[in-house]
Amino acid sequence: MRLKEPVALSTIANLIGADIVGDPQEKVEGINEIHKVDTGDLTFVDVEKYYKKALNSRASFVIINKEVPPPDGKSLLVHPKPFDAYNQLVSHFYKVFDSFSLNEVISPSASVHPTAVIHQGVVLGNDVTIGENTVIFPNVVVYDNVRIGKNVIIHSGSIIGGQAFYFAKKGQRYEKWHSCGSVLIENNVEIGSACTIDKGVSGITRIGEGTKLDNQVHVGHGVVIGKNCLFAAQCGIGGKTIIEDDVICWGQVGITKDVRIGKGAVISAQSGVSKSLEGGKAYYGSPARDLRIVQKELAALRRLPELRE
Amino acid sequence: MRLKEPVALSTIANLIGADIVGDPQEKVEGINEIHKVDTGDLTFVDVEKYYKKALNSRASFVIINKEVPPPDGKSLLVHPKPFDAYNQLVSHFYKVFDSFSLNEVISPSASVHPTAVIHQGVVLGNDVTIGENTVIFPNVVVYDNVRIGKNVIIHSGSIIGGQAFYFAKKGQRYEKWHSCGSVLIENNVEIGSACTIDKGVSGITRIGEGTKLDNQVHVGHGVVIGKNCLFAAQCGIGGKTIIEDDVICWGQVGITKDVRIGKGAVISAQSGVSKSLEGGKAYYGSPARDLRIVQKELAALRRLPELRE
Amino acid sequence: MRLKEPVALSTIANLIGADIVGDPQEKVEGINEIHKVDTGDLTFVDVEKYYKKALNSRASFVIINKEVPPPDGKSLLVHPKPFDAYNQLVSHFYKVFDSFSLNEVISPSASVHPTAVIHQGVVLGNDVTIGENTVIFPNVVVYDNVRIGKNVIIHSGSIIGGQAFYFAKKGQRYEKWHSCGSVLIENNVEIGSACTIDKGVSGITRIGEGTKLDNQVHVGHGVVIGKNCLFAAQCGIGGKTIIEDDVICWGQVGITKDVRIGKGAVISAQSGVSKSLEGGKAYYGSPARDLRIVQKELAALRRLPELRE
Repeated sequence: MRLKEPVALSTIANLIGADIVGDPQEKVEGINEIHKVDTGDLTFVDVEKYYKKALNSRASFVIINKEVPPPDGKSLLVHPKPFDAYNQLVSHFYKVFDSFSLNEVISPSASVHPTAVIHQGVVLGNDVTIGENTVIFPNVVVYDNVRIGKNVIIHSGSIIGGQAFYFAKKGQRYEKWHSCGSVLIENNVEIGSACTIDKGVSGITRIGEGTKLDNQVHVGHGVVIGKNCLFAAQCGIGGKTIIEDDVICWGQVGITKDVRIGKGAVISAQSGVSKSLEGGKAYYGSPARDLRIVQKELAALRRLPELRE
Repeated sequence: MRLKEPVALSTIANLIGADIVGDPQEKVEGINEIHKVDTGDLTFVDVEKYYKKALNSRASFVIINKEVPPPDGKSLLVHPKPFDAYNQLVSHFYKVFDSFSLNEVISPSASVHPTAVIHQGVVLGNDVTIGENTVIFPNVVVYDNVRIGKNVIIHSGSIIGGQAFYFAKKGQRYEKWHSCGSVLIENNVEIGSACTIDKGVSGITRIGEGTKLDNQVHVGHGVVIGKNCLFAAQCGIGGKTIIEDDVICWGQVGITKDVRIGKGAVISAQSGVSKSLEGGKAYYGSPARDLRIVQKELAALRRLPELRE
Repeated sequence: MRLKEPVALSTIANLIGADIVGDPQEKVEGINEIHKVDTGDLTFVDVEKYYKKALNSRASFVIINKEVPPPDGKSLLVHPKPFDAYNQLVSHFYKVFDSFSLNEVISPSASVHPTAVIHQGVVLGNDVTIGENTVIFPNVVVYDNVRIGKNVIIHSGSIIGGQAFYFAKKGQRYEKWHSCGSVLIENNVEIGSACTIDKGVSGITRIGEGTKLDNQVHVGHGVVIGKNCLFAAQCGIGGKTIIEDDVICWGQVGITKDVRIGKGAVISAQSGVSKSLEGGKAYYGSPARDLRIVQKELAALRRLPELRE
């Protein structure tokens, strides 16, 4: 996430009780996980084997659990528990529903176009924007920091911008990685009833223009979906997966995290996608593979009992 | 849908800017997609190869994109974009939540039996009726034009009467087919939490007497379910599928659109039904087939690695 | 369930119109289904082949449809329809949302820790308790008799404590078994958006400390989940299944009712678990079996079309 305004490194260091290696007057412009950092950003590292990656990343500031010589143009914050410090900063700068939620359903910082229709029971978080002619049906919840375009329809009970299912394992326990990302829903998208679309951990979950989701579809954190895709009911898409334009997923398809589905792929109902798939083809099965090959195997399997004899 | 009162053909023609071939004083009684038309209805056709079907259907009025000789007893509305004109009429005559939704959660046109219990956070749309002793648990949303019988239980967060997932493809884009159908939930039905039951595109989605749905079940547009069926959690049923009486679907079963499941069929958990199934039998697998045959194949598959050697 | 205070057997007998075989002054302390009974409890039996089991159970009181000699220390209530009588008692002593639901969203008998945060649109039933620092996001519904620990997060639209999907078949019809159980969510649990967690029929559904559920997960009645488990999106777990500590289920896994998953088992996405699984192993497929065996079979299946030739 970008901070609303840049914050001095000294202020950040005070908040988390870290020692500064660098110039305390420098300004931190954003806080992001390592995959999403850019110049001006603060990130963290707490495992020695990732030190190099963090120190050579585009981040300008790194919270780290050991003092090391900072690379040119970077400053360090030395802290015994960088993960906790990162979470503490996210919680400090990214308030969830806080400024309004006890008495109001629409945040004063939400911006709703006058032609949009917001039905009963809808909750709109901080910094939500809703475009022209968009309709939000009853009992939808939009968490903070979600941008919804024009002519979008979101059906009842859908939850947009929920927190990422993303944890760090510490011994046997899981510690929550606080989400500070966002969701962008482009123009002419339709989202069915009881869908769940999580925000990115620190990046953006995006639903491309003209894409249509049926009911009970789940879209994980940081997923990027292209234009004019169709997802039938009860599909689920794992975190950070990329789906190009014109993809069709029929009912109950599951797609794992961190894969890419090529433009125009068509995935049969109940398929389970475990790796990236080329565009322009039809897929089937769990694990999903080329439709024709799977059909041949199933045909062979049907004759297997007699073949054995 | 039937119109609340018949409307002169001339009024319809003016609304959409169409030319009349026929008697402008005739009365239009309903607006329906081609699969659902009856005498007095208006439908549309915009592809030449379907002209014959539309003109020979039971519809009395057809919006068409070319002037042709009207069959006996039929009138035509000639319009360059019949699909758009149809959608415009549906939007005009079928108002979604409109008359009340800014300030109230229960439409003034909803009719709730005095013995029914409507919990907090429930939204009831226009022309909803709720029968004797029915209980609607918190945060349920019932869209317009849904009829719910006696002794029905609908658990929290379920969404009844959402719009069909039904689009016309125009180039690469999908254009929404506006829903004007309804939902009928018969007596003694129980619907779990977070279920979604869509209305028909222009017809009726029906849940038969005594049928029970577990949580997170999805029922597509125009589905007809018989009496005393059981659907375990997370089942999904595609549009216009017909399910006869006494069918049991265990958890996470998916059934495609436009098929028929015979009386008393039992479908094992996670099965995927891709075509119509005879009644009175047990089914399994994705695609679902006769349980015993699939079990034999799976047994053969288990011995396949050794068979190869 | 335990009754809030013990009730004389004579009072119970009057409520349901039963004949007492035993001491009318004895006190009934709880009402439970046969699997969950303890000393002081009332249960019922209506099928002769289960008489022995009921009469030899730990229950002190049995509703029965025939007069038989009561075992030592037990009293009987003779009633022509024990199942109906049981349901009548559950409905009498276990009021669902009744005392507040017409005008308030939070029951006066709910107990919310002052540091907990309850967002807009949340409904909290009777005898709900919410611990320190717990956050309940908008539009969550918590039915009666649910205990939620400290540092718990429940995301929007989730439904906790819904009634069991549990019916008795009477001819072709299903009669609802009224739920009087509860849900216990231990400390540090996180539950995603649009999840559904049912209460036990008469026992407890438990989510163990530190366990994390992604969105749209379904947990059936009476399920017991251990500590530090992970359930990815759209998993479903059937009634009364036991899941030990440290289990991981990836997306869209289905687990049938009444099975046990051993500590540390890891179940691949879309697997379907049809029987109990040993701990410490990886599983895959529908039906789910040892991951490596299933992978070998799938590899063999891929070569089957050529093998046939």
